[in-house]
Amino acid sequence: MNDYEIKLVRLQGEFVWHTHADTDELFLVLDGTLTIQLRDGDVTLLAGEMYVVPRGVEHCPRTDGEVRAMLIEPIGVVNTGDAGGELTARYDDSLSD
Amino acid sequence: MNDYEIKLVRLQGEFVWHTHADTDELFLVLDGTLTIQLRDGDVTLLAGEMYVVPRGVEHCPRTDGEVRAMLIEPIGVVNTGDAGGELTARYDDSLSD
Repeated sequence: MNDYEIKLVRLQGEFVWHTHADTDELFLVLDGTLTIQLRDGDVTLLAGEMYVVPRGVEHCPRTDGEVRAMLIEPIGVVNTGDAGGELTARYDDSLSD
Repeated sequence: MNDYEIKLVRLQGEFVWHTHADTDELFLVLDGTLTIQLRDGDVTLLAGEMYVVPRGVEHCPRTDGEVRAMLIEPIGVVNTGDAGGELTARYDDSLSD
């Protein structure tokens, strides 16, 4: 939508602590329970619940089982933000206009 | 999120035909059945289904019963687009930063 992507993702386990300096990031949980760890406390989202991580705020998603979620963020945002590492997803532009 | 608003709305009946010249508009149905009438056919969305009306495309939402939905669009977009009229919502900026 405009210059944003709506991503449907499956999450399992613990991700890496990272920050997106230039954008907020919206999480909407579709199934399962997602914990978004923040440096000043956890945010727990059940199915149908939503949270926006503000730009510049360090966060680390974590799940107990599998979680299906919708993410909304600008096109081209790197999933691991400033952290990089082996969990960095290759950017797939095959669905872009 | 960034310069976008996530709106939770209740829709009932037929809206007005209108166009947003400058932005796409995302509809995600939470409950009920929403028909987005387009000039070249209808799009019917059930709960959990999503559609993005491209900028410049004339559309008219219609429901049989009540529909709960999530809309995502840039801050300040007028609900009736270019059409105006009595269904135009006063913009509520009381929740803005």
